[in-house]
Amino acid sequence: GAVEVSVRSPVACWFSAMLSCFGGSVLSSLMLAEPPVAFLAKGTNVLLASSVWYLVFYCPQDIFCRCFAFLPLRLLVAGMKEVTRTWKITAGVAHADSHFKNAWLVMIAVGWARGAGGGLISNFEQLVRGVWKPETNELLKMSYPVKVTLIGAVLFTLQHSQYLPIARHNLIFLYTVFLVVTKVTMMLTRSTASPFARLEATLGYMFFGMQQAPSKVKSEGALSSNGSSVCDRPSSGQHRDGVKKRQAKKTE
Amino acid sequence: GAVEVSVRSPVACWFSAMLSCFGGSVLSSLMLAEPPVAFLAKGTNVLLASSVWYLVFYCPQDIFCRCFAFLPLRLLVAGMKEVTRTWKITAGVAHADSHFKNAWLVMIAVGWARGAGGGLISNFEQLVRGVWKPETNELLKMSYPVKVTLIGAVLFTLQHSQYLPIARHNLIFLYTVFLVVTKVTMMLTRSTASPFARLEATLGYMFFGMQQAPSKVKSEGALSSNGSSVCDRPSSGQHRDGVKKRQAKKTE
Amino acid sequence: GAVEVSVRSPVACWFSAMLSCFGGSVLSSLMLAEPPVAFLAKGTNVLLASSVWYLVFYCPQDIFCRCFAFLPLRLLVAGMKEVTRTWKITAGVAHADSHFKNAWLVMIAVGWARGAGGGLISNFEQLVRGVWKPETNELLKMSYPVKVTLIGAVLFTLQHSQYLPIARHNLIFLYTVFLVVTKVTMMLTRSTASPFARLEATLGYMFFGMQQAPSKVKSEGALSSNGSSVCDRPSSGQHRDGVKKRQAKKTE
Repeated sequence: GAVEVSVRSPVACWFSAMLSCFGGSVLSSLMLAEPPVAFLAKGTNVLLASSVWYLVFYCPQDIFCRCFAFLPLRLLVAGMKEVTRTWKITAGVAHADSHFKNAWLVMIAVGWARGAGGGLISNFEQLVRGVWKPETNELLKMSYPVKVTLIGAVLFTLQHSQYLPIARHNLIFLYTVFLVVTKVTMMLTRSTASPFARLEATLGYMFFGMQQAPSKVKSEGALSSNGSSVCDRPSSGQHRDGVKKRQAKKTE
Repeated sequence: GAVEVSVRSPVACWFSAMLSCFGGSVLSSLMLAEPPVAFLAKGTNVLLASSVWYLVFYCPQDIFCRCFAFLPLRLLVAGMKEVTRTWKITAGVAHADSHFKNAWLVMIAVGWARGAGGGLISNFEQLVRGVWKPETNELLKMSYPVKVTLIGAVLFTLQHSQYLPIARHNLIFLYTVFLVVTKVTMMLTRSTASPFARLEATLGYMFFGMQQAPSKVKSEGALSSNGSSVCDRPSSGQHRDGVKKRQAKKTE
Repeated sequence: GAVEVSVRSPVACWFSAMLSCFGGSVLSSLMLAEPPVAFLAKGTNVLLASSVWYLVFYCPQDIFCRCFAFLPLRLLVAGMKEVTRTWKITAGVAHADSHFKNAWLVMIAVGWARGAGGGLISNFEQLVRGVWKPETNELLKMSYPVKVTLIGAVLFTLQHSQYLPIARHNLIFLYTVFLVVTKVTMMLTRSTASPFARLEATLGYMFFGMQQAPSKVKSEGALSSNGSSVCDRPSSGQHRDGVKKRQAKKTE
């Protein structure tokens, strides 16, 4: 119902778009007791994100959205978004380390929040749009981006604590390549299976005694892949996110 | 259902009243990562607000409430409330400026939050009372006070950044006079139309291509004016707010 | 539905358990604008709590849970939990005093939040598990532990401000003994009546003109006592709390 909201109340729509763009920054600021409005202080990023938001929702005849239905462009944007994700995670881990020395749980939490923030606060982002689905949240049913961000946060924390015998830039490079390749593969093949499905099923069986896990993971993967089709405008605010992040990245 | 809550749980009722009184302070503190309980440190204000809350809800035979059904008294209280609103906005803008230099978006956000805080967190204030209406919030359907506070925050931020060629005290004076006159007019004529309805419709048509905006704005105006009838006790906690702010102001 | 959640999503279950364990710490940190993730920095406590969480939910044949169905063990754990409650309240009061000098309302609020945090944020803890019951919260229907923590916070604040002519360690001793005795009595007799029921009814009648209070308090007491039966696994996350706190205490 993003289109309906955009017609009824541009302010709520803008606020919701900003939350899904800068959610990671807001959430990690809250966790470290820093001003969550700090993202507004970077005027350029906010202006760029706002202009993309405006073009997406109010452009006559949906020209902007149609451009992004062009597949190579979508691949490019999705790839760039994954690159910024790596940067966010490393920034979050380093930031947390500067607050709490050697608190590896805090580092994981903040890195995860910074990287996957928009997903983790999706309940409150929906509340702004007047939607409230308490029975679903990203912790109950983790989508693939949230999962992969969690793994990334754990890896970078291990590297930061020098438990992983690998140089930092190598890890960043490998993780980014993995993210981009996985994302592009998922978009091209329209595959719904998470690459971790088998691993998860095994772990779930070993540690938590789950039997029905495999089928569940698969259906969940189907859902998340539907949600990430980039310019399927009425579905959700997902694609705004990607587009804005690309813009923000270009300026940096 | 404020009366029912007051009978069932005085604590929740008191907490909800405090939130609607000091919501602006709490919200702007959260946004700037300052202790949101700071308002409790000003013992006098809290005690005054609490005593008014007590008189409103538990006074025998509703004497207190009947006094405020007297029209001139209601006008006086409503006017005073609008005066404190101006003070809050300017305080919020100045406070934000002391944290982030020249971040005009932060200044607008904090000024708005400080001035209209009770409205913006109304969802959570309702949650305390056991009510949950996710489909309505002040961002989706901005009521008139929230709108006018947003405009005020923008104006004072522009003045603070020296984009507006007007002295500060002149702007405060003009804005306060505008607020009081509009409020008193709305109360006297029981008019439901927001003074900005026509302007909003034009802007909405120009920028967001809204067609059905005018009728929508009008019905919304009707709702907000119903809500602000000062001593209509069972409707909501709105009037507690006005009454307490008057008291708080008198002590300052 | 804690068991169902634990099968569907171990992450959400773990997060919910951590919130109910460290909720007081998180809430009081938020109130004083300190990093709410600070509790993760104490690795030992979190690891212990996590291991208990794991044993409770994923132990084969429920061995761990059956052990705690043994009454003397349950009494011991419940008693220890009450002892830590006293410590938490005094720590909260002292901490608040170090931030705001002589702000007795802040001291009460922070002490209360630290001592009864898990209960006060129960709505959000439920949200993590995908449950949302807006019509019930701890402010609307205070359970016995939340009530007694509020009284404790008031007492320790009075003592801290030297209004109570009693030494600090004496007050701690008396309050802890009172807590433990009341809790054990309630568990042994399966009594549902809160010890304050009569006092509350009188106060409610005097100040708030409640007539139907007594019957209401009693039914509420019945509910809260049901919830606190220690190893009634499917009911709620209540017992995890007790168990983990015992572990956390032993390490200190």
